[in-house]
Amino acid sequence: MARERIAIIGAGPSGMAALRAFESAERAGAEIPEVIAFEKQDDWGGQWNFDWRSGIDQYGEPVHSSMYRNLWSNGPKEALEFAEYTFDEHFGRPISSYPPREVLWDYIDGRVRTTNVKDKVRFSTAVRWVEHHEDRDIFTVTVEDLKNHQTTSSEFDRVIVATGHFSFPHVPEFQGIETFPGTLHHAHDFRGAEKLADQRVLLIGASYSAEDIGVQAFKMGARSVTMSYRSGPMGYDWPEGMEELPLLERFEGATVSFSNGETREFDAVILCTGYLHKYPFLPSDLALQSGNTIYPAGLYRGVVWQGSPKVYYLGAQDQWFTFNMFDAQAWYVRDLIMGRAELPTAAERTEHLQDWHQRFQGVGGDADAVRFQAEYIRDLIGATDYPMFDLVEVVRIFLAWKDDKKKNILTYRDKPYRSVMTGSLAAEHHTTWLQELDDSLERYLSTPEETDVEKAVRGVDTPDAPAPGNVRGEETPTA
Amino acid sequence: MARERIAIIGAGPSGMAALRAFESAERAGAEIPEVIAFEKQDDWGGQWNFDWRSGIDQYGEPVHSSMYRNLWSNGPKEALEFAEYTFDEHFGRPISSYPPREVLWDYIDGRVRTTNVKDKVRFSTAVRWVEHHEDRDIFTVTVEDLKNHQTTSSEFDRVIVATGHFSFPHVPEFQGIETFPGTLHHAHDFRGAEKLADQRVLLIGASYSAEDIGVQAFKMGARSVTMSYRSGPMGYDWPEGMEELPLLERFEGATVSFSNGETREFDAVILCTGYLHKYPFLPSDLALQSGNTIYPAGLYRGVVWQGSPKVYYLGAQDQWFTFNMFDAQAWYVRDLIMGRAELPTAAERTEHLQDWHQRFQGVGGDADAVRFQAEYIRDLIGATDYPMFDLVEVVRIFLAWKDDKKKNILTYRDKPYRSVMTGSLAAEHHTTWLQELDDSLERYLSTPEETDVEKAVRGVDTPDAPAPGNVRGEETPTA
Repeated sequence: MARERIAIIGAGPSGMAALRAFESAERAGAEIPEVIAFEKQDDWGGQWNFDWRSGIDQYGEPVHSSMYRNLWSNGPKEALEFAEYTFDEHFGRPISSYPPREVLWDYIDGRVRTTNVKDKVRFSTAVRWVEHHEDRDIFTVTVEDLKNHQTTSSEFDRVIVATGHFSFPHVPEFQGIETFPGTLHHAHDFRGAEKLADQRVLLIGASYSAEDIGVQAFKMGARSVTMSYRSGPMGYDWPEGMEELPLLERFEGATVSFSNGETREFDAVILCTGYLHKYPFLPSDLALQSGNTIYPAGLYRGVVWQGSPKVYYLGAQDQWFTFNMFDAQAWYVRDLIMGRAELPTAAERTEHLQDWHQRFQGVGGDADAVRFQAEYIRDLIGATDYPMFDLVEVVRIFLAWKDDKKKNILTYRDKPYRSVMTGSLAAEHHTTWLQELDDSLERYLSTPEETDVEKAVRGVDTPDAPAPGNVRGEETPTA
Repeated sequence: MARERIAIIGAGPSGMAALRAFESAERAGAEIPEVIAFEKQDDWGGQWNFDWRSGIDQYGEPVHSSMYRNLWSNGPKEALEFAEYTFDEHFGRPISSYPPREVLWDYIDGRVRTTNVKDKVRFSTAVRWVEHHEDRDIFTVTVEDLKNHQTTSSEFDRVIVATGHFSFPHVPEFQGIETFPGTLHHAHDFRGAEKLADQRVLLIGASYSAEDIGVQAFKMGARSVTMSYRSGPMGYDWPEGMEELPLLERFEGATVSFSNGETREFDAVILCTGYLHKYPFLPSDLALQSGNTIYPAGLYRGVVWQGSPKVYYLGAQDQWFTFNMFDAQAWYVRDLIMGRAELPTAAERTEHLQDWHQRFQGVGGDADAVRFQAEYIRDLIGATDYPMFDLVEVVRIFLAWKDDKKKNILTYRDKPYRSVMTGSLAAEHHTTWLQELDDSLERYLSTPEETDVEKAVRGVDTPDAPAPGNVRGEETPTA
């Protein structure tokens, strides 16, 4: 029998996990199927592959990454660590718990950069259309080589969709927004907070984008940061200059009216209104239609498409766990494909889906949701040879992280956590997040002498009232 | 014989011209094929259908329009007027020669809004993939209804590609650009110049985008406007505060170095670096690959795809003439499809293409290029029942327009031209372009009393040295 051909669409963290899963089996002596990954960017890493462009990329494709220059992890790295490739192994020494983007990219790249898996990726290649031939149960995948504009089609036995769901912004209408004269875009197109210095900033939304861009804008010296919520406020103990208001009702030029009757003028508006599940290369009977939820309908064990069980999704959930969950999913999907794990019948899968959906209905808050996702991962890992890790302890880390944020949204990233993989405690970083203005890998891994400027700054910095955005010598309202 | 089915992809000015061409034949009593247009936006008008969003639209699709709120026509309307639906007919009275965007949208909408052609358009519908079945010489067109996420496929006998080529930005790399901390995007994502007030603005490019956004930024009170050219400067007599520099070499944060050794600091950078021909829904053997040129290779008479003569392109040329050229193309394509015009053999088409390419090689400058495009249009109209118009006079209008710009880039839009369709002279507008800050249709068509503010402003305004961006009471460097 000829080897099966597997198409992986996307080589971000999920697609890389799939590549690694197959490579891991091959390294252990197994014969693996022919695997080809298609990645529209020039390099892998997905979200973690920063693009200075916004909107449309150098090939005319929608820009994939929603990350900005100054982004640091907003959760402790101990909650996302690979169970089979630790931070200690990669960096050779403990690093802090909240690394900047480039450091995390280096980590996920490092796991696979010395293997042969990069040869399996067609970079700068966009998948244009997938057709399912039901008679033979195979797929024609049509792709475009973006560098030479050539389209080609070939047949695959299975398709793994790993394109993520934080790339296509959800950009709703607000009354009068077309009259707003200032900076206006979605968080997806946010590339750095430096330009928000001295600006009156409105962030529409009350989730991670608003929280993170909000404190980043504050850090970089925004004159004011207003966050507008629909269902409820985030409720952190915001520093002076940051506030939450209920949903905005309308724009009239630069003036925004809120549902509590207040009005404000703004210089910049960023829509932190979430993302769409979007798979423009899939016919609708193969395309997941879902909001951002931790257990999307139609995916057996969160990965097998009920409508066609040779189609798999990785990372389609809303995520507490990230990299290690993608691993658990990728290892399980690999084992299904290689016949190491048995796919239940459609009826059994439906029953399983209903069971887990019922459990999901019982989830009543963030702590519950973290535990639910931990149990989901435990179930997947149990079916594979991926190393089991202490999920109960990782849940505890997530809950402590949430506590840290409640205590101080500006300093939570300075706290170290202990790895459940190695037992080693994270390093304290040489510079606090609030004072660090150089987010590069080089600076992060350096052990700089404290400069006079930093000493001076630290002198006015206390854990409860950090100095707002004045590191570059800008005026501060309070100091 | 069953009626042929024709798919039109895109309902902007070119697609609307195709719809009008068929409707015009039907009105005259002919039986026309079944025509269906697919338009991803919620309304027609293409570029002229303003979207406040940038980058990605409400359905997760790339935003089509590259226009900004304050955009006015940058060429006289007398050079783009439909020969069979005049401005006088639409507005009932003479209007000025350079109307704002909304006024031009109203004009192209007005020609067809009272007909049945809107019923032939599937709005909010993106074409995902076109497959050519060579055995039967028919096309399967797969589309997605963006509102309900359903994909459907159906067969067509012919495909008219009318998606334009000023929608996918060309976003090249510049050394260090990822370190630029200010506003940074392509002209495609520019939505209004108000936010450039008091900013030091760099526009990379030396064509229409740079010219137009440059004077718009000046009008709205930019502190300085620098335009960077690759081949040569535009060379207008720029007002104080605007300058042209040769190509930039690199960014270091906010500082930009130019090839002549100069450096400048900027607050905002807009890439006016042009657009890509991009047809992500077409296999490469049907997709035009071209730069922006007035006679693209591979299109017989600028419209028939040599590789498959049941595929047509409208508006694929670089354009001096616009709306009336799209009409000439649409009428000719209609006549080919309806058998009113005969398609020469492939060999004859190749010979014709080579002839015109040879003529095109002889084009030596803008005046020549305008004349070349006029002759191209004359050739098309000669083959159809579209009303011939005085192309020599329109060439003269184009040349006068270029002269006007050379004389004063800030006042050329105030000059009236005479319609070759009706013989009537355009109105002088109630407010000069430089003083007009309300670009709405309502304001444009009104006959406002001059306000005190306007009088005061006009008092410091002379044709040669207009007051920079101080209409809103902002400080000016010179006044």
